[in-house]
Amino acid sequence: MLSQVSPAFQFELIAQDGNARAGVFHTPHGDILTPVFAPVGTQATVKAVSSRQLTELGASLILANTYHLYLRPGSDLIAEFGGLHQFMNWHGPILTDSGGYQVFSLSSIRKVDEDGVTFRSHIDGSTHRLTPEKAISIQEQLGSDIIMAFDECPDPYDPKYNQKAMERTHRWAERCLAAQTRRDQALFGIVQGGVFPDLRARSAEFISSLGFPGHAIGGLSVGETKEEMHAMLEVVTPILPADRPRYLMGVGSPEDLVNGVLRGVDIFDCVLPTRLARHKAALTMTGRINLLNSVNTRSQSPIEEGCQCYTCQHYSRAYLRHMLVAKEILGATLISIHNLHVLLELMRQARQAIIEHRYSAFASNFLENYRLP
Amino acid sequence: MLSQVSPAFQFELIAQDGNARAGVFHTPHGDILTPVFAPVGTQATVKAVSSRQLTELGASLILANTYHLYLRPGSDLIAEFGGLHQFMNWHGPILTDSGGYQVFSLSSIRKVDEDGVTFRSHIDGSTHRLTPEKAISIQEQLGSDIIMAFDECPDPYDPKYNQKAMERTHRWAERCLAAQTRRDQALFGIVQGGVFPDLRARSAEFISSLGFPGHAIGGLSVGETKEEMHAMLEVVTPILPADRPRYLMGVGSPEDLVNGVLRGVDIFDCVLPTRLARHKAALTMTGRINLLNSVNTRSQSPIEEGCQCYTCQHYSRAYLRHMLVAKEILGATLISIHNLHVLLELMRQARQAIIEHRYSAFASNFLENYRLP
Ligand SMILES: [Zn+2]
Ligand SMILES: [Zn+2]
Repeated sequence: MLSQVSPAFQFELIAQDGNARAGVFHTPHGDILTPVFAPVGTQATVKAVSSRQLTELGASLILANTYHLYLRPGSDLIAEFGGLHQFMNWHGPILTDSGGYQVFSLSSIRKVDEDGVTFRSHIDGSTHRLTPEKAISIQEQLGSDIIMAFDECPDPYDPKYNQKAMERTHRWAERCLAAQTRRDQALFGIVQGGVFPDLRARSAEFISSLGFPGHAIGGLSVGETKEEMHAMLEVVTPILPADRPRYLMGVGSPEDLVNGVLRGVDIFDCVLPTRLARHKAALTMTGRINLLNSVNTRSQSPIEEGCQCYTCQHYSRAYLRHMLVAKEILGATLISIHNLHVLLELMRQARQAIIEHRYSAFASNFLENYRLP
Repeated sequence: MLSQVSPAFQFELIAQDGNARAGVFHTPHGDILTPVFAPVGTQATVKAVSSRQLTELGASLILANTYHLYLRPGSDLIAEFGGLHQFMNWHGPILTDSGGYQVFSLSSIRKVDEDGVTFRSHIDGSTHRLTPEKAISIQEQLGSDIIMAFDECPDPYDPKYNQKAMERTHRWAERCLAAQTRRDQALFGIVQGGVFPDLRARSAEFISSLGFPGHAIGGLSVGETKEEMHAMLEVVTPILPADRPRYLMGVGSPEDLVNGVLRGVDIFDCVLPTRLARHKAALTMTGRINLLNSVNTRSQSPIEEGCQCYTCQHYSRAYLRHMLVAKEILGATLISIHNLHVLLELMRQARQAIIEHRYSAFASNFLENYRLP
């Protein structure tokens, strides 16, 4: 039995080209044109970038991390502001994860049981407990538009543990649905199953049966090969209902985006563009470049010729390199703006290609010209 | 004999109220309404703030440091870009200092002789030499609108050394004038003399006699008391020609600005607003506040009620405090924007008060309500 999808979260499929889809996902804070890349604002800010700069970049959806915000400044504090939109001054759609992934990757001394997870804060060592109900309650305090079911994300290569974790994730998904009280948030279920096609198929079938308004694919880009990631997507997306958006969690290199869209994914998020910027690397449509490279010392060229971002329109590689060498904060801001632009623009171009039924050629052409790092 | 002031650098006195002056200083990159505060962009960036944000703040003049840019990325590199305006994407007026102050405060193993100063870079220990001619030549490469004569800035309390350094500064001022080749830059002479009224008067008289299109007062805010600083201004400004702008170097706390304007100063610069921001403190029209203070933890108020800056219009103290606690770069940017706004706005209000002949009341009222740190 499918639960009713709120009209506030209608997903319109505009065009399909092979398995690639172009759509519009309506949310209470605005429409998201898919496929879409969501910049990550872990601690209620996309690192080094202001909300106004995000708007100028044409970002529509951003992601924030429940685990981080719950620990600091606290979801109760954010609730006092009327939610994350007001607190962080971002008035477009926001997606929050459930905190599950960070609990398993960042915290220490965690204990998983059927009811939930006990863990210690990576900040101050204090003990906390997350359960499906608690993860939903925190996300309701945060007030994000898209919220995630609480899941367990194990080592992708352990078949036994993946089965156990997947089954628990399924039970937790049902508890999350039951715990939800706000109707102005879209709760997405999460498909798990490691690198095992049979587990992935079972998970996609079970999660699809619960009537979520959207579905996420979790536990990928966590150490498996690209081939394994693609294989899992090819198992999962055909099972997921076509009339709901599909979100591939934590995946966001240019080649992964193009390959994900090719396999029917609509939404992506990743810290890559802002993290690379802080590590002095720029993304381009043809590969990564290290701005510290001495070839850039006197270069009057922008990061990427023809790029329409604020950074490339106004600053040279030599200036950006100088900012990095001189340890100036503006360097991280300007390179982040460019790197985010590349992924946002890539998804805009992909969408156009899907609408014009030439996505397959677009993808091959992009992947052929893109030097993998 | 006064040298001809280029019409590109005409200074119009709009109003005078007591010793306070409101003017317009024309430069090849735009008009500067005085009194004015110039944000400091030491390494070709106002720290954590983009050119666009500076424009939105209404900044008209910014300062960059010759010493820093000469060492890194190199003034020859900046010249290849056509100068600092193009390199750093700031198309308004730029003032550069001569490098003298930094040589005496930052570098090690310096040796002063009649011809110039030999010093070691604070970055890599390499040996360099600055002379009056070299300081002008570097500033000509940088292409700033206002350039400074090369001066020596000694301990303000040593009478003997101040006399010697002042006399050398005078000889260097003449050499700087002789060395200047570009007519699209205004070279300012610098008055020295420590805390000694007789030296200051002699210096102001001599420097005024050389026909510079503007005059700077150096060697203040370097350890002397506020009373001494005010006394020196009261000696110097009446001697300086009224038809040229007066620049009090490196001075920029709100109370110093108000007191400087009261004593006939037109131009100020200081790292204070951006440095405080990186040290978690905000300026307000009534004093400094520490945003880390726990009273701000849940505060939905802006830094300053009624403030029209981007930060106060969109962000709460609680959010800014969270940015600081979470060590997010955006915190430095947002607080810098507010702090710069305070000084820029203070000078706009001072100018209006001068034009309306109520500056003395404006200044008393401000100083009465401003809690000194
Ligand atoms: Zn760009
Ligand atoms: Zn403000």
